[in-house]
Amino acid sequence: MGDSSPELKKMKQVSDMKAFDDIFPELVQLMTKDGLKDSEVADAMTWHKEVLEYNCPYGKKNRGLTVVHSYQYLVGDKATEEDLKLARILGWCVEFLQAFFLVADDIMDASVTRRGQPCWYKLEKVGLIATNDSIYIENTIYVILKKYFKSKPYYVELIELMHEVTLQTITGQTLDLITAPTDHIDFSNYTIERYNAIVKYKTAFYSFYLPVALAMHMAGIEDEAAFDSARVILLKMGEFFQIQDDYIDCFGDPTLTGKVGTDIEDNKCGWLIVQALTRVSAEQRQVLEENYAKKDAECVAKVKAVYKELKLQRVYADYEENSYNELIQLIDQLDVSLPRKMFTAYADKIYKRDR
Amino acid sequence: MGDSSPELKKMKQVSDMKAFDDIFPELVQLMTKDGLKDSEVADAMTWHKEVLEYNCPYGKKNRGLTVVHSYQYLVGDKATEEDLKLARILGWCVEFLQAFFLVADDIMDASVTRRGQPCWYKLEKVGLIATNDSIYIENTIYVILKKYFKSKPYYVELIELMHEVTLQTITGQTLDLITAPTDHIDFSNYTIERYNAIVKYKTAFYSFYLPVALAMHMAGIEDEAAFDSARVILLKMGEFFQIQDDYIDCFGDPTLTGKVGTDIEDNKCGWLIVQALTRVSAEQRQVLEENYAKKDAECVAKVKAVYKELKLQRVYADYEENSYNELIQLIDQLDVSLPRKMFTAYADKIYKRDR
Repeated sequence: MGDSSPELKKMKQVSDMKAFDDIFPELVQLMTKDGLKDSEVADAMTWHKEVLEYNCPYGKKNRGLTVVHSYQYLVGDKATEEDLKLARILGWCVEFLQAFFLVADDIMDASVTRRGQPCWYKLEKVGLIATNDSIYIENTIYVILKKYFKSKPYYVELIELMHEVTLQTITGQTLDLITAPTDHIDFSNYTIERYNAIVKYKTAFYSFYLPVALAMHMAGIEDEAAFDSARVILLKMGEFFQIQDDYIDCFGDPTLTGKVGTDIEDNKCGWLIVQALTRVSAEQRQVLEENYAKKDAECVAKVKAVYKELKLQRVYADYEENSYNELIQLIDQLDVSLPRKMFTAYADKIYKRDR
Repeated sequence: MGDSSPELKKMKQVSDMKAFDDIFPELVQLMTKDGLKDSEVADAMTWHKEVLEYNCPYGKKNRGLTVVHSYQYLVGDKATEEDLKLARILGWCVEFLQAFFLVADDIMDASVTRRGQPCWYKLEKVGLIATNDSIYIENTIYVILKKYFKSKPYYVELIELMHEVTLQTITGQTLDLITAPTDHIDFSNYTIERYNAIVKYKTAFYSFYLPVALAMHMAGIEDEAAFDSARVILLKMGEFFQIQDDYIDCFGDPTLTGKVGTDIEDNKCGWLIVQALTRVSAEQRQVLEENYAKKDAECVAKVKAVYKELKLQRVYADYEENSYNELIQLIDQLDVSLPRKMFTAYADKIYKRDR
C-alpha cells in the first residue's frame, strides 16, 4: 500500500498472493480430513476434495485479497500475523461464495469453459451432480466460520452478512434469468433500471461490498452508518465495474484482455444494448432484433455497426468520467471514520483499466 | 399425545395441521413483502413467491409437525401459544430445508412428478432456473431464524445445527450419486455399509434427528449428552424407516400406498437389492445384472422372482422385529432427562405401518 515504486508494488502483490494461496490447503483439509478417515463417507470426501480443488483456487482472487487489503487499511500497523491469517480466511470465504455461484451459474447458462478449463458440470463424470457440489461449496463457508471465528464477538455478524449477500446474489440471478430468456429475444425488459438492478444484486453486493464489510467486522466496526456509507460507495463502484466489463466485452482489445467477448451472441442484457435501445430509430431497432443473440459473426458485426452509429463509445467515455467524479465526491463526503484512502485506492485500480 | 380415543386423536391431528398451515403465509410474506413494493426487485419477488408456494406446502409435513410435538413432549403444559408458534416456525424451517433438497434432487434424478404435480424444474418457464430457486429456498431459512429467534439464547445453535444437517444431507446425496450411476449398472458399491451410510446421511439426520434437536434447543436443553443420546435413537429410527420404505416400494400394496414403486427400474441402491446381493448364487446374480434398472415390466418381475427365491420377505420381517426391539432397548437405556414417551410414540407410529 502507499505510493511505493512499481517494482515494490509488484513484489508486494506476489507475496500477498502467495500468503493467500498458502491458506487454501488448510481449508480443504479442515473440510475433508476427518471424513477421509471415516469409511462411511470417505468416498464422498474424496469427491468433495476434488470439487474444492477444481473450482475454487483458479480465479484472479481480487475479491479474496480485497478482504486482506481492506483490513490492512482499517487497522494499519496494528495487524498481527494471526489477524492477517484470519483476514485471508475470510477472503477465501468470499472466493468459496464466488465458486459456488459460478458452478451453479455455468449449469444454468450452459457455459462451456471457466477460468481456462472445462466447466465442472461439463466433466463426463459430473453432469448435474454439479448442482449438489455447488451447494456443498456454499456450505463449507459456515464450517470455516465456525472453526476460526466462533469465539469472536462478530461471529454472528459474519454469518448473517454471508447469508444476506447470498440472498441478494440469488435475487440478482433470478432477475437476470427472468429478464433474458435463453430461447428467444425479448427486449421489453432491457431497461436501464432493470440493468442496474441486476448488476447491483447479482454482482456488486458480493464482489464489492462483501469483502470490505467482512474486513470492517474484523476491525471491530459496529456503527451501522459506517456500513451504510461503505455500501453506497462500493455498490457505485460495482456498477461502474460491470458497465466497463460490458464495454470491454464488445470494444476491448483481445490482445490485451486475452478473450473474445460473446455478450451479443449470448443475448445478454448488457449496458451497450440497453443504451442502444434508448437511442435507436425504428430501422436500427429492427437490425438489433434481427441480429442480436445469433451465433454468427456477420450478425454480431451488424449489431456493432449500430452501436457505432449511435456513438456508444462516446456515450461510454462520458459515463466513465461522470461516474468517476461522482464516486470521488461520495468518498470526499464520507463523514464516518473510514479511511478515504482505502476507497480511492480501489477506485483508481478499476477506472481506466483496459482489460 | 396421551392415550386418547381414536376420534379425539384424529381431531387433534386436524387442528395441529391447521395451526401449522396457518403460519405459512406469514413466512411467505416475510420473505417477499418488502421486495414486492421495491420496483428494482419486484419481478424477482413475484417469482420467489411462486417458488415457495409451489414447492413448500404440499408435503405430509411429518417433519415439521414433529418439531411441534417434540416441543410439547419436552415442556408439557408449560408451552405458551407464543412458544408453540415459534415451534411451528421451526417446523416450517425443516419443511423448507426438505423442499430445497427435493427441488434440487428432482433435477439431478430427472424426476417427473413430485407430491402429485409436475416437478418444479419440469415447468416450461422454469427449467434449470430451478437450481437457483432451490438455493433460494435454502436461504430463506436463515432470514426466518433471524426474524423470529435472533433474541433467543439458542439462536446461534439453531443456525449451526441447520448448517451441520444441510452438510450431512449433501454428503449423503454425494454418496448416493457416486454409488448409483444413472447410465449403467455397477453393483460393486451396493454393500450394506454403503447403504446404511447413504440412509443415515441423506435422510436420517434431517428427517429424524433435526426436528427433535430443534425442539430440544427451544426447550432450553444444553447438555451435549442429551443430544448425543437422542441422535443415536433417532438415526436408528431413520434407518428403519428407509428400509421399510424400500420394502414397501417393492412389496407394498398399491391400493394402500397409492403409488407403484419404481426402485428396481430406477437402479436404486435399495435395501432389497443389497440384501439379495449378499445371498445370491452366480446364476441369480446374473439374472439381477441383466434385469435390474430396466424400464420393462418383465425385467422387474424377474428381479422380484429372485427376491422371492431368496425369501427376502422373511428376512425383512426378522429385521423389522429385531430393529424394533433394539430401538426399545435404546430408549429404555436412556440415562438423560428426555421423555421416553416422545421416542416410543414416534417408534410406534413408524413400525407396522403399511403405507
